Amino acid sequence: MKHLEEKTLSSKQIFKGRYLKVEQDKVQGPDGNIYTREYILHPGAAMMIPLLPNGNVVMVHQYRHAVKQVFLEFPAGKRDHQEETIKTAKRELLEETGYEASTWKFLTTIHPVIGYSNEHIDLYLAQDLKKIGQQLDTGEFLEVVEIAPQDLLARVQRGEVTDVKTQIGAFWLDKILRGEWN
Amino acid sequence: MKHLEEKTLSSKQIFKGRYLKVEQDKVQGPDGNIYTREYILHPGAAMMIPLLPNGNVVMVHQYRHAVKQVFLEFPAGKRDHQEETIKTAKRELLEETGYEASTWKFLTTIHPVIGYSNEHIDLYLAQDLKKIGQQLDTGEFLEVVEIAPQDLLARVQRGEVTDVKTQIGAFWLDKILRGEWN
Repeated sequence: MKHLEEKTLSSKQIFKGRYLKVEQDKVQGPDGNIYTREYILHPGAAMMIPLLPNGNVVMVHQYRHAVKQVFLEFPAGKRDHQEETIKTAKRELLEETGYEASTWKFLTTIHPVIGYSNEHIDLYLAQDLKKIGQQLDTGEFLEVVEIAPQDLLARVQRGEVTDVKTQIGAFWLDKILRGEWN
Repeated sequence: MKHLEEKTLSSKQIFKGRYLKVEQDKVQGPDGNIYTREYILHPGAAMMIPLLPNGNVVMVHQYRHAVKQVFLEFPAGKRDHQEETIKTAKRELLEETGYEASTWKFLTTIHPVIGYSNEHIDLYLAQDLKKIGQQLDTGEFLEVVEIAPQDLLARVQRGEVTDVKTQIGAFWLDKILRGEWN
């Protein structure tokens, strides 16, 4: 794939907001010409599928102002200081849902915004859950819900689960529960 | 879900780069306190699964500078002037792959970046394809490939298809080809 790659000539941060940082690079394209590329600098994130002994998954309802809707999501959060994402996952599961899990399995890595962000999200399956108690950050409002995997998949089919990380989690869980993927 | 919603108090564009626009809003949270929210303003996009009569799908390899990798993707592109996404889909399919499709089916809408962008992507299934000829935009470099759906799904399982829209397209196609979803 070398023939499709672009060579970075220079790189600078052109915006720093309260939360978002924008990088602007000059690159040399495969045709030899110079192009400008802009993207958000993101620390990376972790998401987990918390699977209860009763077969349900633990999820959250959260309002997302960028889209101005309440979303049904798997718990997730951003990395602190480039920590390993398993550490992020454990912290966020406890903070957002109040559960701790003693069995963790890495599933896959996804890139949600390849056009304009370097964000990656590592997905985990969390099992053997124990309830401890929710510890939300300031300014974070969410509601914990329990859902059966088949109900979640039906909601995906009906277009009711539009958050990509959550929809991908629902499909991976479906493959795992069918015994097709392990 | 009203009790989770935030009320927008003010909204302003705080950054406009060559490509990216950042909006910063003041909102009142469910607790009555004032919070700052920042997000990218995006026009929306369309993606399609182009399914050939031989059972393969038409995909593209494209270098994405934000992540500095070549990705295997379903063809996709941004809306022009708030056009209907079916129009975007038809234009992008022709531009990127050189195919026209006479049968189109809307599948679903996804939100790739609910934390910091208002982007939505409408997904379509495109069938009855006819080859016309690729018409790439300046500065766009991509390679068209044909892949069997089962091979695509195996690549998803192995973690080789990390672009979220493409991975979601692969799972929807799997459900459709199994006859589980129509």
